[in-house]
Amino acid sequence: MNPKITRFLAEQKPATPCLVLDVDAVADRYHALGKALPQARIYYAVKANPAQPILRRLVELGSCFDAASWEEVSLCLQAGASPDAISFGNTVKKVSAIRAAYEAGVRMFVFDCREELEKLAAHAPGSRVYCRLLVDNYGAEWPLSRKFGTTVESAKELMLAARELGLDPYGLSFHVGSQQLSAEAYEVAIARAAALFTDLSADGLDLRMVNLGGGFPIRYRDDVPEIDHFTTAIFRAMTEHFGNALPEMLVEPGRFIVGEAGVVRSEVVLVSARGRKDGLRWVYLDIGRFGGLAETENESIRYAIRTSRDGSPTGRVALAGPTCDGADIMYEKTHYELPLDLAAGEQVDLLGAGAYVSTYCATGFNGFAPLTEHYI
Amino acid sequence: MNPKITRFLAEQKPATPCLVLDVDAVADRYHALGKALPQARIYYAVKANPAQPILRRLVELGSCFDAASWEEVSLCLQAGASPDAISFGNTVKKVSAIRAAYEAGVRMFVFDCREELEKLAAHAPGSRVYCRLLVDNYGAEWPLSRKFGTTVESAKELMLAARELGLDPYGLSFHVGSQQLSAEAYEVAIARAAALFTDLSADGLDLRMVNLGGGFPIRYRDDVPEIDHFTTAIFRAMTEHFGNALPEMLVEPGRFIVGEAGVVRSEVVLVSARGRKDGLRWVYLDIGRFGGLAETENESIRYAIRTSRDGSPTGRVALAGPTCDGADIMYEKTHYELPLDLAAGEQVDLLGAGAYVSTYCATGFNGFAPLTEHYI
Repeated sequence: MNPKITRFLAEQKPATPCLVLDVDAVADRYHALGKALPQARIYYAVKANPAQPILRRLVELGSCFDAASWEEVSLCLQAGASPDAISFGNTVKKVSAIRAAYEAGVRMFVFDCREELEKLAAHAPGSRVYCRLLVDNYGAEWPLSRKFGTTVESAKELMLAARELGLDPYGLSFHVGSQQLSAEAYEVAIARAAALFTDLSADGLDLRMVNLGGGFPIRYRDDVPEIDHFTTAIFRAMTEHFGNALPEMLVEPGRFIVGEAGVVRSEVVLVSARGRKDGLRWVYLDIGRFGGLAETENESIRYAIRTSRDGSPTGRVALAGPTCDGADIMYEKTHYELPLDLAAGEQVDLLGAGAYVSTYCATGFNGFAPLTEHYI
Repeated sequence: MNPKITRFLAEQKPATPCLVLDVDAVADRYHALGKALPQARIYYAVKANPAQPILRRLVELGSCFDAASWEEVSLCLQAGASPDAISFGNTVKKVSAIRAAYEAGVRMFVFDCREELEKLAAHAPGSRVYCRLLVDNYGAEWPLSRKFGTTVESAKELMLAARELGLDPYGLSFHVGSQQLSAEAYEVAIARAAALFTDLSADGLDLRMVNLGGGFPIRYRDDVPEIDHFTTAIFRAMTEHFGNALPEMLVEPGRFIVGEAGVVRSEVVLVSARGRKDGLRWVYLDIGRFGGLAETENESIRYAIRTSRDGSPTGRVALAGPTCDGADIMYEKTHYELPLDLAAGEQVDLLGAGAYVSTYCATGFNGFAPLTEHYI
């Protein structure tokens, strides 16, 4: 675990459950990605963690921002971001949100259908717009594919329509799915985008940008390929398909930037064999699926776990949250082992928990207060 | 739709998304259940909706309360409930929560394992305790079974141990699962509890209470049996298995009391055919799984939907929330039809949404503020 976080936990002994996140580690990851793919501009996906200390640090570093709502646009502006460093990256936007962002100076918007394009033409006239393509999310641990994106055929029509509607048909985007473990997913999507660039060029439309989305995986319980593995494949695919006429490249990392910078500290509320002889102990923590660990739905994201008893002999456990909800189980099928002497009142840390915990957290399910956050 | 809510919506035109809940309708449901099962005391499951106007009204009506946490105990006290009208009904409790509740005067606690029993003996000495049995949740639309409860054999040992530990072995509980459509689930569980009563009586332990849990279903999109169907079966099973020596009966309804009293009003953000010819329109609302509709996970709870275009010809839709999360889809496999002329900016009401929406709601996922609540 990150020594700065270890020291904070040891000295401050914060009440649990809480998120402790090292803002310097965020900066390190920003630099690492910038180094691995210097050709791309980084639009931090604010939804991963919109805390002001993170946004302010990224503003200082020159980052751009991918906002999912007017509220997120507003958080970026509050942190000092320039409106032209913000992309409104949600394909589903209220008219009031489009207007508010436009009035604040935001001029880049995504869309994936005719209806949204018309809203943009009416309420964000002249803005740069990019169309989100539907791509396969195979290989992603948190796939996104069904809800967003459109076909290449439809995107072609839409980009031509964007010009007709007085918008600036700026580029294309795709998202290969979050925590994507396969570099091939990017290669396939880049080939598709490049073909559409060529196709539209024949219609006199010169697109200038490819938004590669996010999805870069981080280390949870299992190793993942290093970032170079993805960026090398991406750059190779870009040069292969676009040749010397490389368009602007954007990336929208969220999890990659903040995930490994954070730790959730929780407390064991109960350890129980539940009157059975099958040996599976149930460990109940003071945080669960509704306290921020939403990505354990279907046991998708598998956090690495450290306990105050590490080093003792271990045995298989199921891990559940503190609520009366039967769905509030993090891991039951996935094989997790924890020390046999772990008991109520002791600490359990979930590593790599800097992304998507503070905002997924419920307002007060079963009366429990939202996760406390410490940015250090 | 409830005329009082209809009027409120028409006159106030509240910003969406919001929950509008008729507190008089809560009182009606409380009375209806009391009439259907007069032998049982009602412990309202606070987790279903802990809003003060609801708790205060139920206090006036003489309701007792099932609290899932110290925070919920505290909310009940704040609403004027007497501590002896509160059951701490979560089998997983922090020591600090047990202590706080005990100090506030709460003397009834559930448990389902030795470890929790020992915590209660140490921190809530002399309290009435009841053991939760594991029962089959077959037939429930929101099952609870895997995480809670213990076997009859283990419960027997635990109740005897409770006596040894200086606690008052008060009774047994079970929960057949939420939105349970089968009365048989209660009958089977009652038979199991009664057998254990008899068994423990032979050991000189006279239990006095059966907590029948909650689970009574409400009308969502589909009809459900009336409450009498369940209460008649319950009372018949109680008399069949306990004869004239009927123990105290407790019920813990949550959804049944508040569900039908509330409506979620939302706005259509986008309607899109998404560039495909398959005819499935996607309707994106300004509320989704992370804005309070958590029970649409796996499309389990299927709300009845009313729109401002009802009466127009309809077509099949998928329904999704406003966030950039691919998991934020309410209904894709379930067949829903909505008016073909429904468009962005128009209203969509989800009926029977008074339970489990305000608290499941995320603090700020994708930047969206929590659901606004109106109690009328």
